Amino acid sequence: MGAPMAANLLKAGFAVTVWNRTAGRADALLASGAVLASSPSEVAEVSEVTLSCVTNSPDVEAIALGPNGVIEGAAPGSVYIDCSTISPEVARRVAAALAAKGVSMLDAPVSGGDVGARAATLAIMVGGDPATFERCLPVLESMGKTVVHVGPSGAGQVVKLRNQVAGGLHLLAMAEAIALARSAGVAPEKMLEVVSAGAGGSWMLSNLAPRALRGDFAPGFMVDLMQKDLGLVLETAANESLLLPGTTLVQQVFGVLQAEGRGAEGTQAIVDAVGPSRRQ
Amino acid sequence: MGAPMAANLLKAGFAVTVWNRTAGRADALLASGAVLASSPSEVAEVSEVTLSCVTNSPDVEAIALGPNGVIEGAAPGSVYIDCSTISPEVARRVAAALAAKGVSMLDAPVSGGDVGARAATLAIMVGGDPATFERCLPVLESMGKTVVHVGPSGAGQVVKLRNQVAGGLHLLAMAEAIALARSAGVAPEKMLEVVSAGAGGSWMLSNLAPRALRGDFAPGFMVDLMQKDLGLVLETAANESLLLPGTTLVQQVFGVLQAEGRGAEGTQAIVDAVGPSRRQ
Repeated sequence: MGAPMAANLLKAGFAVTVWNRTAGRADALLASGAVLASSPSEVAEVSEVTLSCVTNSPDVEAIALGPNGVIEGAAPGSVYIDCSTISPEVARRVAAALAAKGVSMLDAPVSGGDVGARAATLAIMVGGDPATFERCLPVLESMGKTVVHVGPSGAGQVVKLRNQVAGGLHLLAMAEAIALARSAGVAPEKMLEVVSAGAGGSWMLSNLAPRALRGDFAPGFMVDLMQKDLGLVLETAANESLLLPGTTLVQQVFGVLQAEGRGAEGTQAIVDAVGPSRRQ
Repeated sequence: MGAPMAANLLKAGFAVTVWNRTAGRADALLASGAVLASSPSEVAEVSEVTLSCVTNSPDVEAIALGPNGVIEGAAPGSVYIDCSTISPEVARRVAAALAAKGVSMLDAPVSGGDVGARAATLAIMVGGDPATFERCLPVLESMGKTVVHVGPSGAGQVVKLRNQVAGGLHLLAMAEAIALARSAGVAPEKMLEVVSAGAGGSWMLSNLAPRALRGDFAPGFMVDLMQKDLGLVLETAANESLLLPGTTLVQQVFGVLQAEGRGAEGTQAIVDAVGPSRRQ
């Protein structure tokens, strides 16, 4: 996700300094005019606004607060925006540590997959200080189409987890609808055309069902990452005594795919988890 | 659904003759220029194309093939279009009985709810003879925006059932996302704005969540009707040995609402079935 988002920052005319844990990942960006740094701290040293997009809570803690982290380089008055999907509690903890050094943090997880990251049509849900949000709006709007301030620090992550609840169940809906179409001998493409247009329509159906139907399981969003997010959701649900039977079922279904070694595939792989028995 | 659909036929300039099982239901249409008939047979006698929109398979059988039914009045060469959601098998049986008298039938179930019926933006999935479909396209397009021929007789119903699978799971997704937003103290309206724009978006979330949030449970589409459709889906799934865990769960959740006497409310009532325990 990070690379196409950084590319859109360059397109919008921002000076961009990049760093990636895996050397070589930034090559295309360097060719487009980005400058390479050797650590998150070095990025923060030369940037008014430092952005990160990584996998999970510990990664954000390492990048922001660890050795050679953002906190070591960022000047007071600068901003750190994290676009990863992580625990709301960790987002708040990192924000508090940075605030003690005069650095503002926004939690700004994104939705819209690789398609949205490339087309700069991401939905970005932002938690943090409203004035900092206003100040950073040009940066966020160069990467996304729907950029909404949803509340104080951590609120972006809270909303993102709800987004994953909806997304996960929509994927299961897609899988079951395709299974039925296939078994009835109705062309799934025809089914998609009309279902997508009506009350059964969803982003997942419009964007991921065509990939699933042609057997393309390359990850826009990985099964392992969805499971990480659903784990955060169900942890929150347990803490707050919420009954979420659908989300629980979706996590169990994706768990079967992980157990079969398909965790690195895209979430559209769920089409293989329902439908006819697999004993042929 | 039938009344706003007939109103759109009048708006498009068609001469419309109407009949309803409940006297008085057609009054608004008569005021707009429709003519009242005393039975389905009488409608068919004076119509090139006769349409019906009723609840379930036995209703369609009665209207089409019963005493004073379409089959008694329809001239050879005329067309009968059924817009109800019924069993694909019954749709095929009725079509065969009418064909023996020279009357063509299209099964043309619709999706898009009361909103779509009024705005003429329904998705209409049509099964039957392609030439008959072409001939009736002006009629169908005056009521819907996405009108797709999906296959032979019964195929419209097959696709519609898949549509209900997606819709039912999207409703559960909506309910669980709202439950989480409420418990975290994030304004659900903000959550909806951003989630609807991203990969978690669905027709249900955009159209029914706002109603649910303001406690409006008036039926666009009734819980009882959704259960009827999901019953048809799971019957088909059992016949075809398909595992559909999500649909099974959704039917169980709506069953709880029915048992609580809420079958006549809109499907958005599902928001009350998940979330915090109800023992306060």
